[in-house]
Amino acid sequence: MIDAEISETVIFYDTDCGGVVSNIAYLRYVEKARTALFAALGMPAAGMMDTGLFLAVVRTEIDYRAPARLGDEIRVVASLVAVEKVRATCAFRLSATAPGGEARPVAAATQIVALVQLPEGRPRRMPSEWLRLTE
Amino acid sequence: MIDAEISETVIFYDTDCGGVVSNIAYLRYVEKARTALFAALGMPAAGMMDTGLFLAVVRTEIDYRAPARLGDEIRVVASLVAVEKVRATCAFRLSATAPGGEARPVAAATQIVALVQLPEGRPRRMPSEWLRLTE
Amino acid sequence: MIDAEISETVIFYDTDCGGVVSNIAYLRYVEKARTALFAALGMPAAGMMDTGLFLAVVRTEIDYRAPARLGDEIRVVASLVAVEKVRATCAFRLSATAPGGEARPVAAATQIVALVQLPEGRPRRMPSEWLRLTE
Amino acid sequence: MIDAEISETVIFYDTDCGGVVSNIAYLRYVEKARTALFAALGMPAAGMMDTGLFLAVVRTEIDYRAPARLGDEIRVVASLVAVEKVRATCAFRLSATAPGGEARPVAAATQIVALVQLPEGRPRRMPSEWLRLTE
Repeated sequence: MIDAEISETVIFYDTDCGGVVSNIAYLRYVEKARTALFAALGMPAAGMMDTGLFLAVVRTEIDYRAPARLGDEIRVVASLVAVEKVRATCAFRLSATAPGGEARPVAAATQIVALVQLPEGRPRRMPSEWLRLTE
Repeated sequence: MIDAEISETVIFYDTDCGGVVSNIAYLRYVEKARTALFAALGMPAAGMMDTGLFLAVVRTEIDYRAPARLGDEIRVVASLVAVEKVRATCAFRLSATAPGGEARPVAAATQIVALVQLPEGRPRRMPSEWLRLTE
Repeated sequence: MIDAEISETVIFYDTDCGGVVSNIAYLRYVEKARTALFAALGMPAAGMMDTGLFLAVVRTEIDYRAPARLGDEIRVVASLVAVEKVRATCAFRLSATAPGGEARPVAAATQIVALVQLPEGRPRRMPSEWLRLTE
Repeated sequence: MIDAEISETVIFYDTDCGGVVSNIAYLRYVEKARTALFAALGMPAAGMMDTGLFLAVVRTEIDYRAPARLGDEIRVVASLVAVEKVRATCAFRLSATAPGGEARPVAAATQIVALVQLPEGRPRRMPSEWLRLTE
């Protein structure tokens, strides 16, 4: 099983006037974790502009379980949970830790991604070595 | 059935280096449509800071069906599809139209929202008149 | 003198936990107005992906004068104030209006933009007809 | 002299369809560095929600010197350059490093910030110990 983990401190820009982290900001944390996950799988973002082979998100599900706040440290653990012919499924668990506090779960997400060859936009098969990872 | 509709033209900031609208930017279009939907239901954003009664997103699902591009006009049609005791479900259909082109569906989303009374963060019941709207 | 004007209602995503619009969100309003300004000048965003001729921001100055809040209507008036050989200067005046209230100035910005031919990234001269506009 | 430094890897969300980091995304990197700078000065973000004493940006200037790209590591060095009675000036130098490459300067910014006591929004004097730091 391939995992990756990132962390980031909540800044003003991530929050909204409800006093907590905006539901949209979590998707940026998820993207940062997804980028780390595929780098660990051998497909770093920096190479995509050269190869033209990009990851495209085709579905996102996210459940918001508890609020996160300014200054909290957000951790995201990303896992590759399934690989099929033309799509891969990733799971993300997000927790928040206030300074001096304990980590609390704040959200859980799932994304389905596909590989797309630019500039034509043709879908591409998942690498066979990824298929084996989740068998 | 209560519906609301918004439109917005894709600007550079909404796109990414894959050449198309970022998966995260769609959630901002969805938020704009959700804001219009609840204003139509009698709960405009401008009043939330006074009453302390806020809408919180508890779940988002979004399927990305086709790419949207710089300069496209995005339309979002938002509908209230179900209201239960402490949560409401909204559906969003997103289409994109290039200048001189025809509208094409690009994404579909569902969000579950709850009402939260700040500053305590207590959940509140959905207004009974909303319950009737989706019966 | 070429002007363009856009308006947009402040949504949750635009605000931060200080209770007001985030300083960064204003730059998105500015970008929307800049896009409208250059469309009025004959260079719509939708065409840039075809021609590869892009506007690049080389400098931004913005003064924040008063807070804007959730539900306010933001208006941005954009003007082309100077065109030189390889750069153009645009000015932006931003105001906010609460529902039932009066417009109040909230920010003023200036941006210097250049034309860049992609994929090489070569700088290009400003169109001569733009030079005449600000003489 | 008080300095702080942050780094962050460019993800898709930070870029636009011109193939490079969006001018607006740099302001988020700047905010992350400013947050680290004021934490080093004894005013961490996490405490602002408790005290109601917030930093407000009153002016931003940013010069974009060269493009940054997907996968680059962005570093921001933030410095407190001047403190007056009711405002402080911070400078930011931003560089980008491609994997295996050398750091290249990409942008330089200056921000003027004020202290604001919420909920009234009253301006507050800068702490006298900060005045001494830049004398």
